[in-house]
Amino acid sequence: MGKGTLLYAQSGGVTAVINATAGAVIQAARARRVKVLAARNGILGVLREELVDTSKETAAAIRGLAHTPGGAFGSCRYKLKSLEADAAKYARVLEVLKAHDVRWFLYNGGNDSADTALKLSQLAKASGYPLTCIGVPKTVDNDLVVTDCCPGFGSAAKYTAVSVAEAALDVAAMADTSTKVFVYEVMGRHAGWLAAAAGLAGEGKDDAPHIILFPEVPWDEAAFLARVKATVDRVGHCVVVVSEGLHHADGRFVADAGGGKDAFGHSQLGGVGPLLAGLVKDQLGLKVHWTVPDYLQRSARHIASRTDLAHAQAVGQAAVEYALKGLNGVMPAIVRTSDSPYRWKVVPAPLADIANREKKMPKGFIRRDGYGITAACRRYLTPLVRGEAPPPYRPDGLPDYVRLKLQTVAKKLPAFG
Amino acid sequence: MGKGTLLYAQSGGVTAVINATAGAVIQAARARRVKVLAARNGILGVLREELVDTSKETAAAIRGLAHTPGGAFGSCRYKLKSLEADAAKYARVLEVLKAHDVRWFLYNGGNDSADTALKLSQLAKASGYPLTCIGVPKTVDNDLVVTDCCPGFGSAAKYTAVSVAEAALDVAAMADTSTKVFVYEVMGRHAGWLAAAAGLAGEGKDDAPHIILFPEVPWDEAAFLARVKATVDRVGHCVVVVSEGLHHADGRFVADAGGGKDAFGHSQLGGVGPLLAGLVKDQLGLKVHWTVPDYLQRSARHIASRTDLAHAQAVGQAAVEYALKGLNGVMPAIVRTSDSPYRWKVVPAPLADIANREKKMPKGFIRRDGYGITAACRRYLTPLVRGEAPPPYRPDGLPDYVRLKLQTVAKKLPAFG
Repeated sequence: MGKGTLLYAQSGGVTAVINATAGAVIQAARARRVKVLAARNGILGVLREELVDTSKETAAAIRGLAHTPGGAFGSCRYKLKSLEADAAKYARVLEVLKAHDVRWFLYNGGNDSADTALKLSQLAKASGYPLTCIGVPKTVDNDLVVTDCCPGFGSAAKYTAVSVAEAALDVAAMADTSTKVFVYEVMGRHAGWLAAAAGLAGEGKDDAPHIILFPEVPWDEAAFLARVKATVDRVGHCVVVVSEGLHHADGRFVADAGGGKDAFGHSQLGGVGPLLAGLVKDQLGLKVHWTVPDYLQRSARHIASRTDLAHAQAVGQAAVEYALKGLNGVMPAIVRTSDSPYRWKVVPAPLADIANREKKMPKGFIRRDGYGITAACRRYLTPLVRGEAPPPYRPDGLPDYVRLKLQTVAKKLPAFG
Repeated sequence: MGKGTLLYAQSGGVTAVINATAGAVIQAARARRVKVLAARNGILGVLREELVDTSKETAAAIRGLAHTPGGAFGSCRYKLKSLEADAAKYARVLEVLKAHDVRWFLYNGGNDSADTALKLSQLAKASGYPLTCIGVPKTVDNDLVVTDCCPGFGSAAKYTAVSVAEAALDVAAMADTSTKVFVYEVMGRHAGWLAAAAGLAGEGKDDAPHIILFPEVPWDEAAFLARVKATVDRVGHCVVVVSEGLHHADGRFVADAGGGKDAFGHSQLGGVGPLLAGLVKDQLGLKVHWTVPDYLQRSARHIASRTDLAHAQAVGQAAVEYALKGLNGVMPAIVRTSDSPYRWKVVPAPLADIANREKKMPKGFIRRDGYGITAACRRYLTPLVRGEAPPPYRPDGLPDYVRLKLQTVAKKLPAFG
């Protein structure tokens, strides 16, 4: 390939496999002798002109990204507004890209990042600068439209299904004299994909999880408590999985009822999991335990899905191909061509169809009673958690996660803002 | 061997490998043609005469116990009091054992179970019934005396170290614009062994976890907050690991300050993790995330330590040997003969030395500033988390955990109580 630099950046909540995408991007570009810079902390690193020279990283380190969780270059929660409202920032971004001869910009994130990549592609076009912008999908929430699934989700889904299955065995063993109800809180503020993944832990009527509470289904406190009681009466215990985004019929988040003050007047950072646990304890008088895995669920590279890892690497590789072909304003999307055997391919999809939209669970994936997943949902989810891809372990028993040098290139512009 | 039955039971909180001990017990007894019954839900199953006939389980199912978490026969939180106070119950236990020709009783648990096994051995001796009682160690809390470590701890320790390492990479990637402080709550009401295990996640001064709060070190709120602030200022973020048993200088648990009421007047099941997170948010104005893994940390068979698994199986096998030799009132204890290379053996230790005692972290294992582990602690812990022992996985991506038939033998006695 000719002259020019490819710039890669990570955005939004990181995942167990976003670095696998980064590694695939760098490897694909290296194979084509294209120079790769990576912005520190997403678009902020572009604004600040903090650009990592990936050529300083060894081939082993880049390979190691495939099994290292977190975001190796740093991520950001920072959304650029409209081209008008944030005109100065967009102009600065373009200025930095020009200064470093960036011809290809790959933004690895969710809905917001797709929007940023799209706007930047429009701006570059309008200003006559030859820049190809690609959105690269990533999110444990699995809420991007067009693509069949999102890299990062399958591993978080596997973590969730495995953890619920394991905790359920624990609760079943303790229930006779101790814990009868276990509440497991999963991520997912608006879409219940991770809550649904918990459903893979069991299939029979009395298998855990016995109750799944989706953000797509308004919460009915009385019906929920009755269901918990009936389950404990019948099975002896009850495992509840609740999405952080559970809400009332009027739209208020259930978790917002928590977050009170403790005896010292400090904020109680509630979470809907402990809140439901308290409710079960108070109203039903049953012994409860609860868990909020929080970041553990999206960083658990040790229990990553092999399918998810393959997706993450494939979108990285495709992004480089699309970029070098000049397919401006697209995202590599995963298309499922068969459930069983699971077959899939990656195709370019217009960012304009993806940016700022959100994919919730379809009605056909939630059981009619609202408390579980359907066979169709199971068919959709199963291939995504299939296969193991453990990291290598060091002699001391810890995973051998890589740490990059993160050497930045010299700045060519004055500081911004 | 001659006539007679061996009775095995599980007690207290279960672990990722207590079933591996059960499997080893059953295999060792089968090899010696000794019949094995297993009580449902620990000593309660004996009182109720609910005894599982393990001969009805296939060899594959018994092998599968080695990779299945939870307590396959059910456990209990139920402590028999003194021989005097609970005379009728001890008498009933003896009656049930006699009715089923039980000559060897193996109780797999912690301090309390060691006490029960010891008392039962004394009672049988006094009444002239030939019964050999063995305590088999198990606890993620690692707080049994005499034994160098407790089966179950190594796997929970590995889970903790790996999870903290993974979450720390996540936080490091987000800290620029989002989460600056992450609080991870571990089990351990009186002893800080699991908190210490988190220290294996990093070794350098600025590696996570940056602060460990042990139950052995009284909490100083001002010093803690100053330390968090200094760490964020220097490193950019701060990972805090806190033991559920953290307490004030006057002995009050810090967690007891939480547990207030939410806006609805429901119990807030706090936990010290969210409480500290709220404090950091209020006092330092930093964005926080927190996790309470709860049962996940003790049931995560998928990330079990190979060393721990070997210990769990070895104590099961030794327990059968000791029982058949008539070594009454002992527990197989793990003796470490070398740190590096790690070497260990199993020896019989008197239950009288173990029952009702508790091993806390020695002073030499906690760093002088109180916020981390020493090199000696690292030397002790590292062998215990070393090696992986993943379970087999099913084609659908979930671990292939076994489920027993749990067929009970016919009752020979009238119901009790």
